[in-house]
Amino acid sequence: MPKIENRLAERGIVLPGPMRAPRGVELPFSFVRVVGNRALISGHGPQNPDGSIAEPRGKLGVDLTVDQGYAAARLTALSMLGSLKRALGDLDRIQRWVRVFGMVNSGPGFNEQPSVINGFSDFILELFGPDAGAHARSAVGMAELPFGIPVEIEAEVEVADRARSVKSARGSNVSNIGRRRSG
Amino acid sequence: MPKIENRLAERGIVLPGPMRAPRGVELPFSFVRVVGNRALISGHGPQNPDGSIAEPRGKLGVDLTVDQGYAAARLTALSMLGSLKRALGDLDRIQRWVRVFGMVNSGPGFNEQPSVINGFSDFILELFGPDAGAHARSAVGMAELPFGIPVEIEAEVEVADRARSVKSARGSNVSNIGRRRSG
Amino acid sequence: MPKIENRLAERGIVLPGPMRAPRGVELPFSFVRVVGNRALISGHGPQNPDGSIAEPRGKLGVDLTVDQGYAAARLTALSMLGSLKRALGDLDRIQRWVRVFGMVNSGPGFNEQPSVINGFSDFILELFGPDAGAHARSAVGMAELPFGIPVEIEAEVEVADRARSVKSARGSNVSNIGRRRSG
Repeated sequence: MPKIENRLAERGIVLPGPMRAPRGVELPFSFVRVVGNRALISGHGPQNPDGSIAEPRGKLGVDLTVDQGYAAARLTALSMLGSLKRALGDLDRIQRWVRVFGMVNSGPGFNEQPSVINGFSDFILELFGPDAGAHARSAVGMAELPFGIPVEIEAEVEVADRARSVKSARGSNVSNIGRRRSG
Repeated sequence: MPKIENRLAERGIVLPGPMRAPRGVELPFSFVRVVGNRALISGHGPQNPDGSIAEPRGKLGVDLTVDQGYAAARLTALSMLGSLKRALGDLDRIQRWVRVFGMVNSGPGFNEQPSVINGFSDFILELFGPDAGAHARSAVGMAELPFGIPVEIEAEVEVADRARSVKSARGSNVSNIGRRRSG
Repeated sequence: MPKIENRLAERGIVLPGPMRAPRGVELPFSFVRVVGNRALISGHGPQNPDGSIAEPRGKLGVDLTVDQGYAAARLTALSMLGSLKRALGDLDRIQRWVRVFGMVNSGPGFNEQPSVINGFSDFILELFGPDAGAHARSAVGMAELPFGIPVEIEAEVEVADRARSVKSARGSNVSNIGRRRSG
């Protein structure tokens, strides 16, 4: 079994399926866009295992505690790993993490964004180790996020050359273009 | 006629001129920064054909409807294509879209950012097709945006090697450094 | 003396030490992440010379004037240069600036984000000159920022190949993983 997936299995973690957007919402972009050895990862949020948006929703400092935000950021890492698995075929193609942009739906005066986004960083570091898992990061407070999710995270990872894995690279742009949902 | 510009002409679309900042505002950065085969695109907003900031301004959920936001995001794509044309010389140098970061000026409780930024994504996909036009994307809610614009979008595209087009690459960093406007 | 550090010395500028996070806050990420010839720079804020968070804190348009915001953005550039010096060994390894993402803690109706972030851009352009210092930029309004800082800036620079400076590249990921602070 591949190394990273083995680590997930050891922890009893199952990655969620593709994101199920709310009815009537079209998301015409790639959840992962592979360009050379860069994989650009779209903004992800916390999902349930079936791909639906996880509860609780709302703002930190109003509707959620820091611990709930931390848990939401950890779920967001799982959501992202699910997209990466579908895009890359094998999570071991991830050479290292590069950039993490952590956005926290923030009520007035809430300024503990780093403690929330640590739910993402801690998990990635645990799974990939201190070298491959290291990443530049920002953790900031947004006025609003789509569908009222408490956390949204965008990222970039470095992936093994296409030459090493041409077949999986071909399917690397996970897209839901044309997958319309009428409300 | 180059392919992309032909598609614009077929649709009767004329790209706006360089951004005209409000009086007294200095913008000492490059609208497009080309580094190797990456073109990093500064935050753009909706413009009128003469380069001035397009109306309506304000917040989604307060001052603008989703349809008005969608139209503003589409205008932002035109603004960005205008900068790319001036920076690259030829829009056909764009090999593919990479990353789109869509920021929506959001009033309290507005969480339909994806439907607003679709005005940008839909147009780019229509113009560049599903392969070159695909992009990773985030669509998020900002507290405020410069000059009260409803939408600001930052992006990155992959461009053809300088070797293919040395002359245009030389002028690739569209800058307005030194172009001061005293109020 | 290296060129950029000479320019800082001429101006009597001393770069601040590593960021001292508030008690109890863990920041498990790299302030600079070097990947090939890209250096990804985490969100930085204004620091005092001893590494603590600089005052004043708060929101533009409520707690700080544009001039105070401009000064905070300039301090943020110094903070970032401090991290880059520790990560790269020598600031002259910076070939050019690429991308600057400027986030302004914004009170209701404040929309002069560009004039605030100019405190960063003006200083970088003064120090690195119009070619190496040029950068793509966004300047936008956040609902909240960590610890109530008025400005946070994320960036990317291009650095000289590792081959030119293997020794300094080895220490290039400035990290504070494992440096816990118990509150």
